[in-house]
Amino acid sequence: MSAEGASADLARAAAGAVSEARLGERLAAMAEIGATGRGGVNRQALTPEEIKARQLFVRWGLELGLEPLIDDMGNLFLRRAGSGGDAAPVVAGSHLDSQPTGGRFDGTYGVLAALEAVQALDGLGIKTAAPVEVAAWTNEEGARFSPGCLGSKVFADPGRLPDLLAVKDLGGVSVADALAAARRAVPEARRRPLGVPVKAYIEAHIEQGPVLEAQGKTIGVVTGIAGRRHFRVEVKGEEAHAGTTPPSRRRDALAAALRMIAGLERVMADPSETVRFTVGRLVVSPNAPSVVPGAVLFTVDFRHPEESAWRRLGDQVPEICKANAGRCAVTVTEISTTRPIAFTGVVRDTIEAVTRRLELSWMPILSGAGHDAENLALLCPTGMLFVPCERGISHNESENAALADLTAGTRVLGAVIAEIAGA
Amino acid sequence: MSAEGASADLARAAAGAVSEARLGERLAAMAEIGATGRGGVNRQALTPEEIKARQLFVRWGLELGLEPLIDDMGNLFLRRAGSGGDAAPVVAGSHLDSQPTGGRFDGTYGVLAALEAVQALDGLGIKTAAPVEVAAWTNEEGARFSPGCLGSKVFADPGRLPDLLAVKDLGGVSVADALAAARRAVPEARRRPLGVPVKAYIEAHIEQGPVLEAQGKTIGVVTGIAGRRHFRVEVKGEEAHAGTTPPSRRRDALAAALRMIAGLERVMADPSETVRFTVGRLVVSPNAPSVVPGAVLFTVDFRHPEESAWRRLGDQVPEICKANAGRCAVTVTEISTTRPIAFTGVVRDTIEAVTRRLELSWMPILSGAGHDAENLALLCPTGMLFVPCERGISHNESENAALADLTAGTRVLGAVIAEIAGA
Repeated sequence: MSAEGASADLARAAAGAVSEARLGERLAAMAEIGATGRGGVNRQALTPEEIKARQLFVRWGLELGLEPLIDDMGNLFLRRAGSGGDAAPVVAGSHLDSQPTGGRFDGTYGVLAALEAVQALDGLGIKTAAPVEVAAWTNEEGARFSPGCLGSKVFADPGRLPDLLAVKDLGGVSVADALAAARRAVPEARRRPLGVPVKAYIEAHIEQGPVLEAQGKTIGVVTGIAGRRHFRVEVKGEEAHAGTTPPSRRRDALAAALRMIAGLERVMADPSETVRFTVGRLVVSPNAPSVVPGAVLFTVDFRHPEESAWRRLGDQVPEICKANAGRCAVTVTEISTTRPIAFTGVVRDTIEAVTRRLELSWMPILSGAGHDAENLALLCPTGMLFVPCERGISHNESENAALADLTAGTRVLGAVIAEIAGA
Repeated sequence: MSAEGASADLARAAAGAVSEARLGERLAAMAEIGATGRGGVNRQALTPEEIKARQLFVRWGLELGLEPLIDDMGNLFLRRAGSGGDAAPVVAGSHLDSQPTGGRFDGTYGVLAALEAVQALDGLGIKTAAPVEVAAWTNEEGARFSPGCLGSKVFADPGRLPDLLAVKDLGGVSVADALAAARRAVPEARRRPLGVPVKAYIEAHIEQGPVLEAQGKTIGVVTGIAGRRHFRVEVKGEEAHAGTTPPSRRRDALAAALRMIAGLERVMADPSETVRFTVGRLVVSPNAPSVVPGAVLFTVDFRHPEESAWRRLGDQVPEICKANAGRCAVTVTEISTTRPIAFTGVVRDTIEAVTRRLELSWMPILSGAGHDAENLALLCPTGMLFVPCERGISHNESENAALADLTAGTRVLGAVIAEIAGA
């Protein structure tokens, strides 16, 4: 039997050993941590809730005989040794943090699917050639600390560590301070330096969009990730009395912000629905009913899969804000810039091959959401697979996915890990 | 000498006995309570800061031999007895609470000017026929508890007490609970029932607009108060992922709110600048950069001096919000409704006559801002006088007024009180 044949057999065995029951139990246990009243989770990065999730993750790893590791950005890894000594590991995972009113699958699924895949290898008594590591990246969501994908960003480019450790949340707490508590909570995890080589990275995730469900497909083989540009827009006007100040004398920061957003909406209008444009945060100061607003801060989240449109439309954001400022002052800061990423090569090919071999329905799909995989793609062969989520709803407490689909995705993941890590 | 001649002499004497130095010292002392870094005050109604201001006000009254009184809505009065026994008092005052980033003169000036006017009568050794009371009304600003002018509203219409005691701030604290602490802090104040008769009410205030300064006038004789209608608009959409959710599938509550506000701005546009339209508060939920907003709450502050336009334009607010809701749901609640008020009669006439007699420059002026006087006008002859404020800026930490103008207004106030209270 050829080596490829042996890997394919191993892959098929790994897929078969995946347990739907175990996966479902772990997903349910994790969903209790930071649970909201309405079925979702609030487990923002490095909060007490997310730290509890990290502790549970490490405990599960120790129970399976995996070695917990933590790096300088708080990224956690559960390492299963390979037969090939110090070979670079195959890494699979995602993140445990959530949006403030997030769902129970976003991120968590990719981490627990990878853990289940590793346990499936255990069940088969198989040692892969390369080590396998299950990763939980720090602050993927960007809800507490901006930008998102903080952990994988620094993993891919350790030179950014000092700047990104200094990032603060709205309450003034720095990443560095929040990390100290997170590290103390998992004393079993050995500290590992950044900059370790990785053989390949695979991430499983719910689609977070409506396409797979609408098309009736179980697996999305991800072709790439839309480029993103995030802006912070600060509008400065002048507080004034709502009853006495004539319109012509006002410097109303909210009125100016609304003109800016309307201008941006006109430019971003796209009948093909390829553009993604969102103002998700808007904060008014002093935010009192009878005071003309003196200051407004808002964010712009702009995404496009094509490099040229991503550049051209994104470049217009500061111009349009300035053109609509009226008597207010405006400062536009681009707080994160992520080029479009295309997944090509061995990981994507293996995901597709395994999916065919397991006779699952599938389609190629573009990710409109950012993922840690986009940073790993800068380091090593990388790919992602999606499973459907109900009504395409994510970043929402009512986010849902069918356990059968989640299990199918885990089978593919397990097989891909096994095949790439080698017999 | 006729009785009127005697009153006029008394009035002139009262005006002359007003002390600029004492007024300035009291304004400075009050400005230290809740002082912000930038010259303003944050002394929202019934907070520890405003309660400190109430204590200082009561202490000053006791030092002058005035009797402190407090009613069921926490309105404070310092009473100077008259020679006529239980006659209805002449009341003058304003409020000690402020906006979150408010100025040091808005409200406070009217209270301290009335206190200075009373001290001027003391200095002359004069006992007026009617008692004189200096009033500090509860929660005029409406910044902490909505609606504003809570204290004077209940004073004019005691039947509203139970409903308005139940109003809560954003933190869930009720007026009733906040009042309990305020009452404990001034044990010297005797409890007085609501519904006492008032002979006349006079309120001095900074203009909070640019007109007097622009016209070079010291005194504004207020002709009336613009009608106001305040609305709370609640927009309900659906949280969704900013990267994956196509525009046509979104129910973006912020985008809908912005369409509503743009629609309202079109209807409220008024080249004559008579309309006042302000969205001062807007709160987005969950307010995360990568989540399509699921809910937005915003306020509408609409004012107009003419009854017909006040009714017609205000009635359009709910319609326009509904017409622009798109795929979101919207609930519009009118949270306060104040008809336009015209000041006519003895108080306004006396303010004008005294101002002429003191040879101060003056003009008639409409108030775009609401004041406690609008509620007192429902009970008794009522009037207001304005003094200029710098650049028309108010509801702002940099609010400023010249002590000479403040003193001139206090002289007019003192003379009007004396003339109406009678020799």
